[in-house]
Parts: sequence; C-alpha cells; structure tokens
Amino acid sequence: MASKQAGGRAGRGVGRGAPGSRRGGDGAALKLEALAQKVVEMARAQEDPAVQIPIRALSNVSFNEEKRHIEMGDAQQSRNFFNYGQAKRFMQTLLVGSKCKDLIASGKTASIRQIYYLSKHTIKGTNEKTFDDQSESDPVIEDLEVALDALREELHVFASNRGNLVGPITLVDAGSTLDCAAMGSAGYAVPSIVEADVVQFKKCQARFVLHVEKDTVWRRFHEDRFWEKHSCIVSHGGGQPARGMRRLLQRFHEELRLPVFVLLDNDPWGYYIYSVIKHGSINLAYESRRMAIPDAKFIGVSSFDYERCGLNDDVKIALDAGDVKRAKQIADYPWFANKRPWQKEIRKLLANGFKMEVEAMITRHLTYLTDEYVPMKLQDRKQWLD
Amino acid sequence: MASKQAGGRAGRGVGRGAPGSRRGGDGAALKLEALAQKVVEMARAQEDPAVQIPIRALSNVSFNEEKRHIEMGDAQQSRNFFNYGQAKRFMQTLLVGSKCKDLIASGKTASIRQIYYLSKHTIKGTNEKTFDDQSESDPVIEDLEVALDALREELHVFASNRGNLVGPITLVDAGSTLDCAAMGSAGYAVPSIVEADVVQFKKCQARFVLHVEKDTVWRRFHEDRFWEKHSCIVSHGGGQPARGMRRLLQRFHEELRLPVFVLLDNDPWGYYIYSVIKHGSINLAYESRRMAIPDAKFIGVSSFDYERCGLNDDVKIALDAGDVKRAKQIADYPWFANKRPWQKEIRKLLANGFKMEVEAMITRHLTYLTDEYVPMKLQDRKQWLD
Repeated sequence: MASKQAGGRAGRGVGRGAPGSRRGGDGAALKLEALAQKVVEMARAQEDPAVQIPIRALSNVSFNEEKRHIEMGDAQQSRNFFNYGQAKRFMQTLLVGSKCKDLIASGKTASIRQIYYLSKHTIKGTNEKTFDDQSESDPVIEDLEVALDALREELHVFASNRGNLVGPITLVDAGSTLDCAAMGSAGYAVPSIVEADVVQFKKCQARFVLHVEKDTVWRRFHEDRFWEKHSCIVSHGGGQPARGMRRLLQRFHEELRLPVFVLLDNDPWGYYIYSVIKHGSINLAYESRRMAIPDAKFIGVSSFDYERCGLNDDVKIALDAGDVKRAKQIADYPWFANKRPWQKEIRKLLANGFKMEVEAMITRHLTYLTDEYVPMKLQDRKQWLD
Repeated sequence: MASKQAGGRAGRGVGRGAPGSRRGGDGAALKLEALAQKVVEMARAQEDPAVQIPIRALSNVSFNEEKRHIEMGDAQQSRNFFNYGQAKRFMQTLLVGSKCKDLIASGKTASIRQIYYLSKHTIKGTNEKTFDDQSESDPVIEDLEVALDALREELHVFASNRGNLVGPITLVDAGSTLDCAAMGSAGYAVPSIVEADVVQFKKCQARFVLHVEKDTVWRRFHEDRFWEKHSCIVSHGGGQPARGMRRLLQRFHEELRLPVFVLLDNDPWGYYIYSVIKHGSINLAYESRRMAIPDAKFIGVSSFDYERCGLNDDVKIALDAGDVKRAKQIADYPWFANKRPWQKEIRKLLANGFKMEVEAMITRHLTYLTDEYVPMKLQDRKQWLD
C-alpha cells in the first residue's frame, strides 16, 4: 500500500523529517502570517488592532449528530489591543504566534513548556513579564489552534510522547522505515507529532486495530503474539490516550480503512476514554475532526461479562460514590443518551455495584484474555457497543 | 562490538525472545525450586516449615563505601507456617513463588497486577481469600526477590515500560535487530525487562550516554541531533527512571564501558533522581548491585549555572518549604555528606532561593541547551559533580 503522503524529505531522524513540514507546517505558517498581516493592516488604517478567537467553553460546544463528533459552535470573541482588559492577552497571542512562526521557519518543534520559556521576557522599560506562568501560555496556544484552525502539531508544538503499538504495518517515521512487527519488546513508540509529513504508511497487512488501555495489558497481547495470530495492530495509550495516539488511530481508520476496536476497564473511566476516542473531548472540541473515530467499537469489558464469562468474586472491585456519580453523568452525554445498549450497559454497571479491570480476566488463566475473551468478543458483533 | 550475550534464541518479537530465558530465568527457576524443596523437607522431617526473608527496612540498609552503592545488611526474619501471625504470609510467599515458577516454565511474563489476579482465589472450604488486595502481593514479590537474590525481571515479573533512547547503537531486542539511530521521532522504547536474554548489544559507536529527566527535553536533543554530533546515546526516563531504564544504563556502563552523564532539573527532586541512578534507592536497596552506576556524573543543571551562564530572572522558580526540607535531607545522605562539591551545590541552591528547570535554558534561545550548554558542561570536568 503506497502512501499518498510518501515522498518529501528523505532525511533520517526527527531533525530532518519531522519539522520544516511542506504541508501542515506551511499551511499553518501562511495562516499565522495572514493573522499578523490583518493586525498590521488594522494598525495602518488607525483601527483598533484585534484578533478573533472562537470561544472555547461548554456553551459553545455541541454534538454533531451527522458527523457523530463533538464540535465547537461559531461564537467568537474579539481580543483588542486598545482594551485595558485584553491588551496583555492580545500581546501574548501575537507573541506565541510569532514563536510558532519561528519554529516552523527553522524546522524545529517545541513543547508547551519550551514555548513558555521561549516567550517569557521582561517588557523593555518595565518590570512587567510577558508571561508569569505556563498557565498563561497554554491557553494562548489553544486560542491560536482554534483561531487558525490548525492543530498545535501543525504549529510545531508537541505534547508528551505516550503509547506504543505492535503489528504488521510498516511506517516511515522521520525518514526511518520501521516494521512495527519487529520493534522489540516495548514496540513502536508513538510520537506526539504523527502528521503525514512526519509519519507515512508504507505497507499494511493489519486487518484491524485493537486499542487497549494500559501498557501492562498491551504487553500481555504482545507476548501472546495476538497481533500475529489475528493480523492486527495492538496499541495502548498508557491510560487516556495522548494526542499523538488518537491522531494516529484516526489516520489508521481514515486512510487505511482499519476498523478500530477498543478494550478498556469496565468502569466510568473506561467509558469516558472510549467516549473521547470515538467522539472527541469536550475540553478540546475543536480537535474532534482530526482526532475522533465515530466508527470505533467498544468490545469490553462489559458489565454483562461477569455472567457471560462465568467470572467469580475475585474480579469484583466495589463501585464508590464517585464512580456512581460519574457513570450517571456519562449516561446523560447526548451521544450515549439515545443509545439503548449503552443505557443498558451503564445501568448494569450500577446494578452490579462493582467494576472490573481488563487484567482481572486473568483470574481465569493467564492467556484467557488473549486466547479466549477477545477472540470471542471480536467474533460476536452483538457484543460490540457502538 | 560483538556482544557476549549474543546467540540464544532467534525468535522474533517478545513472545519468543523474552521469556523462557536460558539464563536468568533458569537460575531463578532453580532457586525457586530449592526454596520449595527446603519447605518440603522440613515438612517431611516434621519440622515447622519456614522461609528466611531478608529484612527490607531502613534499619537493614547501609552505604557500602567501597562499592559506592546502597546495600542491604544480613538481618533476616523467619516466616513460619505454624505461627498464627505468619501462616498467611507464608502461604502467600509460596503461592506467588509457584506462580513465578509457572511463568518461567511457560515462557511467559506478567505484571505485578497480573500476579495479583493470578494468585487470588478463595481457599477451599473457607471464605478466606489468598489475597484481598494488590498491596498484599506486591511486598511478597519483593520478599521473593531478596530471599532468592533474583531481580523480579528474572522471576518473569515486569514493571511498566517507561523511557526512550536514541543514538548510534544497534541492539537485539526479543530477536529483532534495532538501529537505535533510526527508530523514528520517539526513539527506541525501553522495555521493562532488559536482561541479557532479552536485549543484546550488537554494535555500538556511542562514546557516552547522556541521560535526561523528561521526554520533552529528550526531544529537544533528538531534534537537534545531539546524539549524531556527539556520537552518544541520549535517553530519558520520563521522570524518575523505571527499573528497565536503570538496568539498561548500568549494562551500557558495565558491558560497553560507556560513561554516563546525567542532566536533571536544578532542584531536590533532580538531586534525588541522580542519587538513585548513582547509588541505588533506599527502598529497594537489594537491587543496587544490578541497577546502580557509581561512576555516573551529574553535569547539571547546577545552582552555580545561574551566574556561570548569565541567565536572567525568567528561569527562576521560588523554592518552597518542601524543597528546602528535602534539600537538607539530601545533603545529609551519607553518600553526599562527605563530598564538598555536593555540599556547596546544595548550599548554593538554598542561598539562591530558587530552582531551575533544564528547559529554562531555552530562555537564552531554543538550541542553547544542545548547542552550547551541554557541550560546555561535557568539556569542563571541573563542572561535573560526582
């Protein structure tokens, strides 16, 4: 399977392959320039320079029934230079924007912490700092993402790396060709930036993706060679998957047409992780389009598996008050509220009065999870939760 | 450089390469058998069956001045079957031991959570569980490690994977040959088990190892291709390095004779991480022999770097009461107490009244850290802290 994204730089390692993007980066650079140009024009026309920032608040978020993801509405706020309450934020927005522009131009990337340190200085002739704390620069990065309709990765800002995968797929990552079936015991480490100018798909023999919650569960699947027996990619996100992992899963799904199955703990946190993978997160609704996988299926652990799989008391962990409250909140999410199977699933959790971890399946025997449980789940579509 | 550990299985992937070890695993299996055999003999001789467990407490820990690592003393306690207060723990010890034996025999590994689920059941004819909680099984695993003088990895128990590296070294991990200079933007993911039967060194052109604290700092070094310019391995542990990373650093040092340099935040937590890498940890003193690197050098960030590097206010983060207390505790560690440079370093931190992160060096400019700061540190031995 030749990738549409192939080509471009042949350099090896992150220094050459990753940044200086010919696609995302340049697009984002042009958008940054346009934003700055507009400010300059307003100043020249003796108007009050301003930038328009879409509002990132629950009030401006809704569930798009057709696209099946959480999305932002059209509400915007103006951030003006000649406004006592907005001038500092205006300055910060342009400052961070200019740092991102520098990063793109020099083919470099930086963490959000590094952006903070790069942007922090004392304003000439004053004792005023541009930023007092990273809690001031992080939201400005998000402002720029929504204002420019560019992911932070396109602005050359990276998050932490988290998550690994194994399976019959060959990738090119920053110029290195990597056979993900032969990357050692910890698998391929998924980077924070997985846009097409960094990661290209070269050859894929996987038929689907199985995404699990934790690295210890993942290791069980790797060691038991599940990915080989079932021709699939097995990935984990080390808990709530980081942006790089979510984006890569979406690319597997969209570009390689791989179905995505998700295996998480039977508890409200597991339901929530699934909700984010499938529909996007409420906090960062503007990313859904690039991260959500509305066709992802939840295959377990289901509240009905206790009886279905003949499990015993050893797997039970009592629900606490927080779990009960959280489960009810999730049942009320608009994207779960109208789905009878999900309502039944969550009601059953509450009726059980206990939660179950994926690893608890091991009480049956060490390879029950990989030899019996998941194959049974994959075979029976009726057990999938959508 | 051909590895002494090369050879053995040629299987690809963790399923074949990792477990069923011909070395560590078998040694540990024999030790487990010997322990069980002794219990059987005592029972046959109508004695009270017992196992001897070295005491894991601060009272039984000391600093070995000659070997320069923290080590356990000889104090032991007997765990007896015919003792009301010890019978359950005795049963648990043999139960976990037998699960480890099964793992080794079947060529499988398990997480500490999986060991808990594997060992948990209701004792026949009673309502008594073998384990009520993982907090009961974790210490039993540690008991077995010290009693058998075997790392948990040799008992086929794995911890979380954490940490990555990049550089001119070719490894064989679970049968796959991996060029760590060409593993993509997130580098080689260091697994939890890196014993010689899993990870072998095939070819190494690195001259030293630079270990940094966080993945975002690591990415700076990777992107700026520091490892290529300086022919070195650059690794990070995602904070306090996990067991796999510590063990691998020690193997680089002992088997490949690579000097290990450590770059951490200028704060008590950074000092502590260095202390653990160099001398071992107090809690798990019995591992020091297999994990500690007494020759490791601390190259920064030093409290003197503020003046030395002409930094400005932007890098300062005020010390809080906890930092001050912790810094004084660390200054009193026996392995720092007699070292004048360390005493000066910690006194200077307290006198400064602020701490500094590695990433703060970026206030100078984005590549100051990799182009100027670390090369300057590496060149000037007088700046190393031992």
